[in-house]
Amino acid sequence: MLTIALSKGRILDDTLPLLARAGIVPLEDPGKSRKLIIPTTRDDVRLLIVRATDVPTYVEQGAADIGVAGKDVLMEYGSQSLYEPLDLKIAKCKLMTAGAVGVPEPVGRLRVATKFVNVAKRYYAEQGRQVEVIKLYGSMELAPLVGLADKIIDVVDTGNTLRANGLEPQELIAHISSRLVVNPASMKTKHAQIRALMDVMEQAVAEDV
Amino acid sequence: MLTIALSKGRILDDTLPLLARAGIVPLEDPGKSRKLIIPTTRDDVRLLIVRATDVPTYVEQGAADIGVAGKDVLMEYGSQSLYEPLDLKIAKCKLMTAGAVGVPEPVGRLRVATKFVNVAKRYYAEQGRQVEVIKLYGSMELAPLVGLADKIIDVVDTGNTLRANGLEPQELIAHISSRLVVNPASMKTKHAQIRALMDVMEQAVAEDV
Ligand SMILES: O=P(O)(O)OC[C@H]1O[C@H](OP(=O)(O)OP(=O)(O)O)[C@H](O)[C@@H]1O
Ligand SMILES: O=P(O)(O)OC[C@H]1O[C@H](OP(=O)(O)OP(=O)(O)O)[C@H](O)[C@@H]1O
Repeated sequence: MLTIALSKGRILDDTLPLLARAGIVPLEDPGKSRKLIIPTTRDDVRLLIVRATDVPTYVEQGAADIGVAGKDVLMEYGSQSLYEPLDLKIAKCKLMTAGAVGVPEPVGRLRVATKFVNVAKRYYAEQGRQVEVIKLYGSMELAPLVGLADKIIDVVDTGNTLRANGLEPQELIAHISSRLVVNPASMKTKHAQIRALMDVMEQAVAEDV
Repeated sequence: MLTIALSKGRILDDTLPLLARAGIVPLEDPGKSRKLIIPTTRDDVRLLIVRATDVPTYVEQGAADIGVAGKDVLMEYGSQSLYEPLDLKIAKCKLMTAGAVGVPEPVGRLRVATKFVNVAKRYYAEQGRQVEVIKLYGSMELAPLVGLADKIIDVVDTGNTLRANGLEPQELIAHISSRLVVNPASMKTKHAQIRALMDVMEQAVAEDV
């Protein structure tokens, strides 16, 4: 049995067509079903529907053999052991700093609110800048509006969320897209099955670009 | 201006009637509006709509003067400086361990999946038990079903989520209800305003019980 961890939303929507190329079609609509374990048309393959931030955990611990996770999530998770063999070139966006339009940086220590605390610490450490990183779980765009932070770090797609809140994208930290991740032990024990799936997905990605 | 941080869902639904007793009624339905800052019928009071887990951060940092947070969130956050003057006795549930029905505990080290990692470490340390705590952000009930963990720690209300997944509640860690939390500096600088609101809420809670 091959277990694939996916998260709802853009990653799910953009990954299902790739899986379909390998004959893997969920037997229930994972976007609508309340089930978290979804069988597919291939009885040797099942899907796990988990939070985007939980995908690396399921795959690293071997509860899923493979998964699809955004590069932002992988950068924050910071695994040393997960294989990341394929850029699926889906769910593209940018990881950026953002701040209020026209407000200069404070002279003292910068306060940065983000759910990407590890990324934030690494980014500012590389620049030799002292910052206070404030961990948030959601709605980062609120933080500068109410004085919780001077800046945020978040993923930006159209920029509409920032603009609607009087914020502007500033520094680019990384271009983001979703990656196939593979558990190293599964890569050995289920090599043929995973290799075949990877080949089909790689081919589909190459044709789409 | 008094700023109150609330999260959507049961806490919002159960707190709004308490605030209404103090003449504080949101000018837009916070459950439906996409706005994160909501003015109220009292022009000296506004609401911030944030994630449940972010309420302690907004209040501790002073971006909100007061907030309403579940005891589970407060136990996990573990602030030394937040005031917690009032048990609102709303959004009651239990923080519990849970595992698969009829499956005995493993002989080796227990693996526990939860979003309450600090609570989990404290709970098992007090019992002198060696555990591996696996951080998850959502859908804890999936973890034992796919071998990610032996047990989970989560909040339980009706128990339906557990039962639907073949799990059962086991050990009680804490009775949970929502608490009013107050920023210590605000408690001084806005004492009359906060004191008055606290009195009205305390009275409403006493009548409800
Ligand atoms: O530039 P935009 O096109 O406005 O997109 C950016 C938004 O998308 C992301 O949220 P997402 O929808 O992934 O949800 P979440 O952050 O609440 O998980 C991000 O946190 C922004 O809110
Ligand atoms: O015993 P029950 O009545 O089934 O309630 C328990 C459920 O409630 C909580 O989730 P919640 O609805 O708060 O949402 P979240 O965990 O997804 O934030 C908890 O994580 C369980 O999933």
